[in-house]
Amino acid sequence: MTIDRESETPDTLGGVGELAALKRIFPRLPSAAAELIGPGDDSAVLATPDKRVVITTDMMIHGPDFRMAWSSPYDLGWKAAATNLSDVAAMGAVPTGLVVAIAAPNDTPVSSLEAIADGLREGCESLAPGSGVIGGDLSVSTVLTIVITAFGDLEGRAPVLRSGARVGDVIAVSGTLGLAAEGLRLLFTEGVVDGEPDAAAAATLATQHPDAIAAQLRPAPPIADGKAAALGGATSMLDLSDGLAIDARRIATASGVGLDLSSEAVGGRVQLDGGEDHSLLATFPEGATLPAGFRAIGRVVEGEGLLVDGVAYTERGGWDPYAGWDGAAG
Amino acid sequence: MTIDRESETPDTLGGVGELAALKRIFPRLPSAAAELIGPGDDSAVLATPDKRVVITTDMMIHGPDFRMAWSSPYDLGWKAAATNLSDVAAMGAVPTGLVVAIAAPNDTPVSSLEAIADGLREGCESLAPGSGVIGGDLSVSTVLTIVITAFGDLEGRAPVLRSGARVGDVIAVSGTLGLAAEGLRLLFTEGVVDGEPDAAAAATLATQHPDAIAAQLRPAPPIADGKAAALGGATSMLDLSDGLAIDARRIATASGVGLDLSSEAVGGRVQLDGGEDHSLLATFPEGATLPAGFRAIGRVVEGEGLLVDGVAYTERGGWDPYAGWDGAAG
Repeated sequence: MTIDRESETPDTLGGVGELAALKRIFPRLPSAAAELIGPGDDSAVLATPDKRVVITTDMMIHGPDFRMAWSSPYDLGWKAAATNLSDVAAMGAVPTGLVVAIAAPNDTPVSSLEAIADGLREGCESLAPGSGVIGGDLSVSTVLTIVITAFGDLEGRAPVLRSGARVGDVIAVSGTLGLAAEGLRLLFTEGVVDGEPDAAAAATLATQHPDAIAAQLRPAPPIADGKAAALGGATSMLDLSDGLAIDARRIATASGVGLDLSSEAVGGRVQLDGGEDHSLLATFPEGATLPAGFRAIGRVVEGEGLLVDGVAYTERGGWDPYAGWDGAAG
Repeated sequence: MTIDRESETPDTLGGVGELAALKRIFPRLPSAAAELIGPGDDSAVLATPDKRVVITTDMMIHGPDFRMAWSSPYDLGWKAAATNLSDVAAMGAVPTGLVVAIAAPNDTPVSSLEAIADGLREGCESLAPGSGVIGGDLSVSTVLTIVITAFGDLEGRAPVLRSGARVGDVIAVSGTLGLAAEGLRLLFTEGVVDGEPDAAAAATLATQHPDAIAAQLRPAPPIADGKAAALGGATSMLDLSDGLAIDARRIATASGVGLDLSSEAVGGRVQLDGGEDHSLLATFPEGATLPAGFRAIGRVVEGEGLLVDGVAYTERGGWDPYAGWDGAAG
């Protein structure tokens, strides 16, 4: 048999190499309005007219963070953008730029990288218009790994921290509660065949529960509401990544107060414990008009930790990557 | 046999969990003079008095980028800092901050993470005093992965790009040429037992060839010379990551000129093709006084690509992560 090197290495990263892959990915990436020097030099240069820049970084790793049978490459690009943009928004900032580091197996089709770029582009354009990718790194690993660092502009405002909640403040949220976790629960229970993640089962699920599956695989957090909250006088804010219970406790601890949630306003357990909504949890001064998008769900009280209807809520809930991952990928 | 859960999960990431690990890592990280808001909120905030920020990102992945038998965790932290700081310096900027994303296997000792933090701290303090870690992310993966995004201040200067070399300019370099590659060659030939990376063999090598092994495992690129080059009028600059031949061609292509190197000034093949020196290659106007640290190695000429002693040099050389990695780790 004649060895045909071309057909041995079809259109994969290992087949075409780093430079050829980058040439196909670059044109698909969104450009940033604040980009002064973009990809192609040793570093990028981003405009920061405010003399400060908001910076956050987050990894998405095949196995603990996503399954290939459930998430398309497009979904991965979108979600990586969304989760990082949300951390910028949670400071009251407007997202401006991202750098993207991707390590992928040698046999990854270049088309998968193109689809990740498409998801990044449409995620940025849809959730944070004007933001874009200003640089990155492409490398090889046996585990598909996407690492985004995102940047934002405070436009002269003070950053909204976790530590500013005051007794009497209204607790409010913009975005879904528990919907992304409901999507994940559905995928793990009904998106499997013989216990293994299954693409066809997930596709069926997505037609039956489009909102929950989309909230998990292609979230659309309320990025613009971060700036709106800051302009509306928010005293504290964060992005709900690990669930309302855990994240509300973070504001309580940082601010030295208690957060008392209304069970009627919140809903049930999945709304309290479910992670990955990337909704914005904020506190506003008593009597303030809540910005459009925010709804009141409780009150800041004296004391510490989380309460529900005035009673301490101490259940753990939430996600720790080391305790929470059983090692499966798929 | 009684199952002792404590001894099953000794002092590893999986045993102590994310939060406890972070509590031990944070105090070891260097703080940045330009940090306005540090780790602990959704995002960090970095001062950028220049109204611009220089940004670069780079991944280090177990297997293609390092071997655990050769690199200590401390070395990994140091090298991750050094390579990213160098990309900031190559723009003529002063490094200010870094964010660090690390994904590690569940069974990674927490002490390894502490040693990575120690390497990051001492690397920053030694190579770029005032710079520090302002944020990060810690997650789980079967492949140890370190991703740094680094930031720099142009202090009112124009960034030094790859595209500014002009015919007649002097080509100069600060730092070693080929020494890191010589270290890697020694490790692959003499730092192995039965073809596998071996810690004891590498330790012996390090006593015999301290400079070459250090250049590979714990590089000390001339970070401050980036600013010095910019102040000295450098017309183009980059960081020598893939070898002098490949990187000189990048300046030639970006600037639309030819780069003619002197074989006498450069040395031999390993100096031309050897990567990972993270030395600074720059061009300066004819007659300019080269900043201390830089030595002349050639001249910018009309034409294109790379020449050596006036003759076109077209050999490929260098490193592509997809073509260059055989899949081994160790």
